[in-house]
Amino acid sequence: MTYSVEPAQGGVTAPDGFRSASLHSGIKAKAGALDLAVLAADTVGTAAGLFTTNLAKAAPVLVSQRHLAQSGGRARAVVVNSGCANACTGDDGMANALRMATETAQSLGCAPEEVLVASTGVIGVGLKMDRVVPGIRGAAAALARDKGAEMARAIMTTDPFPKDHAVVVRTPRGDFRVGGTAKGSGMIEPNMATMLGFLTTDAAVPTALLQRALQESARRTFNAITVDGECSTNDCVFALASGANGMSVDEELYPALQAAFYEVSKALAIGIVRGGEGATKLITISVQHARTHADAMQVAKTIANSPLVKTAVHGADPNWGRIVAAAGRSGVNFDVDHATVHVGGVLLFEHGLPHDHAAPDAATHLKGTEVCIDVDLGAGEEMATVWTCDLSAEYVRINGEYRT
Amino acid sequence: MTYSVEPAQGGVTAPDGFRSASLHSGIKAKAGALDLAVLAADTVGTAAGLFTTNLAKAAPVLVSQRHLAQSGGRARAVVVNSGCANACTGDDGMANALRMATETAQSLGCAPEEVLVASTGVIGVGLKMDRVVPGIRGAAAALARDKGAEMARAIMTTDPFPKDHAVVVRTPRGDFRVGGTAKGSGMIEPNMATMLGFLTTDAAVPTALLQRALQESARRTFNAITVDGECSTNDCVFALASGANGMSVDEELYPALQAAFYEVSKALAIGIVRGGEGATKLITISVQHARTHADAMQVAKTIANSPLVKTAVHGADPNWGRIVAAAGRSGVNFDVDHATVHVGGVLLFEHGLPHDHAAPDAATHLKGTEVCIDVDLGAGEEMATVWTCDLSAEYVRINGEYRT
Repeated sequence: MTYSVEPAQGGVTAPDGFRSASLHSGIKAKAGALDLAVLAADTVGTAAGLFTTNLAKAAPVLVSQRHLAQSGGRARAVVVNSGCANACTGDDGMANALRMATETAQSLGCAPEEVLVASTGVIGVGLKMDRVVPGIRGAAAALARDKGAEMARAIMTTDPFPKDHAVVVRTPRGDFRVGGTAKGSGMIEPNMATMLGFLTTDAAVPTALLQRALQESARRTFNAITVDGECSTNDCVFALASGANGMSVDEELYPALQAAFYEVSKALAIGIVRGGEGATKLITISVQHARTHADAMQVAKTIANSPLVKTAVHGADPNWGRIVAAAGRSGVNFDVDHATVHVGGVLLFEHGLPHDHAAPDAATHLKGTEVCIDVDLGAGEEMATVWTCDLSAEYVRINGEYRT
Repeated sequence: MTYSVEPAQGGVTAPDGFRSASLHSGIKAKAGALDLAVLAADTVGTAAGLFTTNLAKAAPVLVSQRHLAQSGGRARAVVVNSGCANACTGDDGMANALRMATETAQSLGCAPEEVLVASTGVIGVGLKMDRVVPGIRGAAAALARDKGAEMARAIMTTDPFPKDHAVVVRTPRGDFRVGGTAKGSGMIEPNMATMLGFLTTDAAVPTALLQRALQESARRTFNAITVDGECSTNDCVFALASGANGMSVDEELYPALQAAFYEVSKALAIGIVRGGEGATKLITISVQHARTHADAMQVAKTIANSPLVKTAVHGADPNWGRIVAAAGRSGVNFDVDHATVHVGGVLLFEHGLPHDHAAPDAATHLKGTEVCIDVDLGAGEEMATVWTCDLSAEYVRINGEYRT
């Protein structure tokens, strides 16, 4: 089947059948700062989730995993707060995360296990439930279709700008929409470190297909970005399908759904990298001709997480040596003499030797805000792309002063 | 056998039977900057080496590996230059590294395979052999016992201070000495990234025991430090035994030799971390009660390489949450509820919950220049210690401007 995926207006509430509301409940100290959001489908639909692989999982992660299992992959709503991660908070933290779901469910008239919970912010501090509970009730009473952009702001912590995106999928069987919002900053790495993401679609999607589309798109987007190699206690990405527009996604329509999930997830993921703490440049690292996709990903991630590569890019230094050294220590086996390195399309390394005469051209490219590093391993047929940002003195300042 | 290991005067030429000379050959642009050194035993002795695991091995690494194999673990001298890594230099680079050995051998009257070669500095640039060759001849003609401290300076690149150390080992069978020097900075990580180390002893040591002592001590010293997780093209550590004092190390004396290698290597390794690029604090990370030593090392290294932990320490923020999150994503399995975190001996995390009332005491500790982080996994009987430094804005400045 032929289909097209086109940008659309709006974000997480662009698909039919979704409303949201965001407000300042008082979790964040700053007056008026949005810190709580409810995203709700008009009726219960299907849901899927991906969760942090960190052993220290926050209470909302544990509650949401349990709810998805109990409901059999169905959900009505997501409740999310910023300013407090509700992580390392023990039994009280579990009770509070559960209470967030229960209060949301009561306000909406659904079962508690049909509510997913997410939190982001400082670790080890308890939620102020005397603020959160009235906040949830207020948000549930104020749900509206046109408040998607507010939710993108309500989930921010140190993010410099909100991130949302939506697309319309056109198929011979009809159109449907996919929307989403995400928050990131710092600690972004394998398996969605300190990242929250929320995808929505107005198609009806069986839970298994929804989970598959989420996993497949996340693998090449949310899990292919890194700011500093960290991975947090609270990461999760949820997908909700409202079925409000009447289209049903089956195996025939699945590729179109996955393409749309990929487009939205990629836009959100790149937004997270652009908003990485102290970031001044978006770096796209493509590794070609690896023996396996995992090899390509490992080399790309090692380069992306190399402080020496990140500082060189920050300083616009076409330092191919650091790129070769990072690839060489990645644990992936390849022949350095068969590898090439391009920066901004300029060949800098080939046959084990530099092309330093080309360095000024590469330096000019590096002075821009969009940097491309291409490494060809000359070892196979697989490839991977990873997005990261440069490492600046500002990153050190932000993270040295976060709590103090 | 009882023995003692006591600090001694001097460095790499403290043991009998070693001389060195260092000079400015012209590899470094700065007038008078030492950039070439020869370290020679009075006669051919035994030798051992450890080399970078990076796939992109520099020419001097390949030549030294070959020479150790060809000589059967015997060597007369080491020739080393700073300012140029002779890495990614192709066939010319191999010829130049070999020529360094050949010239040294001719000057000293030994076989070329009895000379080991090391280089450190910028990657991808050829050695100026019209400067190096006269430099080698000049150094070989100026060898002296009292020039060990100069060699410690001649091998420096961005190191802020020279590093050398020596000990005397007292045993019922007599005394012997172990000395050494090393260079580090930036890119220090697993398996000796961008690190050169040279150990000497005046005992006679069979090659197999010398290699074993070098490996065992490096595992807990040079391979237990990290500045930024990088691993270079040029790392190597050599050990040379002159046998000049008449003592022969056998299995009975081996523990004393290894203890001495450990003391010297530890002093040099900690010196490398203290001199890490932009470092303002030495961080000692001990992981206790892991199931295996490898588990303990992996958790300790993950914490040590976490940019969020390193920036928090830099800002004197007792952020136990980042330490727990790093341990939790390390890939090692343990129960977070059984783990504890101490900073400066102050308990900050236990039973899955913070002890935030103790945070001010930990913050006071973190304001010093020696920081201790202790993580107990509560999972077994093994432990490991790793040394690292904080991450400062100065690190970014140094590495963003290195070549430009």
